[in-house]
Amino acid sequence: MTDIEVQSLLAAVPSNLPEEQLSTLLQTEYFRLVRIVSTGQATPEGEWYDQDENEWVLVLQGSAEIRFEDSDVTKSLSPGEYVQIPAHVRHRVDKTDPDRSTVWLALHYT
Amino acid sequence: MTDIEVQSLLAAVPSNLPEEQLSTLLQTEYFRLVRIVSTGQATPEGEWYDQDENEWVLVLQGSAEIRFEDSDVTKSLSPGEYVQIPAHVRHRVDKTDPDRSTVWLALHYT
Repeated sequence: MTDIEVQSLLAAVPSNLPEEQLSTLLQTEYFRLVRIVSTGQATPEGEWYDQDENEWVLVLQGSAEIRFEDSDVTKSLSPGEYVQIPAHVRHRVDKTDPDRSTVWLALHYT
Repeated sequence: MTDIEVQSLLAAVPSNLPEEQLSTLLQTEYFRLVRIVSTGQATPEGEWYDQDENEWVLVLQGSAEIRFEDSDVTKSLSPGEYVQIPAHVRHRVDKTDPDRSTVWLALHYT
């Protein structure tokens, strides 16, 4: 008999973290589904993410600003909003909500 | 230059549908990411889903009840809650929120 467990992305959300918290929810050879909790963190000044995998990322709670290097455009994300970031598109998180934990759901895939 | 578009899972949510609305957000050889909107629909009486793929499914808005055949257990899902349903675990949606559109995010994968 299969026991199916209900879990919540919005439960046990820390409100004060020294660094972002990453929890892998699901992983196969081809993708990784991760919950990320940010409590005001941003990518360190002058640094960019340059990822080998594509990323689809959703904000569930809180808010964030992502900046893209080549266009120098900043995008704001509120709950329910997502972006799809192709591999090697350099980007950084300029800001996450200073007042409330930001909960992200990220799907990294090849 | 890459144009990154912000989209929302909670935008353009219909409130009255003759049947559930499925929108594929992302698809590769190995998975399919789908937004589902239910407006009170349930699986027809006596029918069960028996899927060839695994499914990870999250409720973002509204609520739902999923029943599993082998355990005869019903699980309720509220916003932020998810379940992981292995392939061929027979289940049905007993109920979706009658008062508000239910928005699901489903990841089907092999």
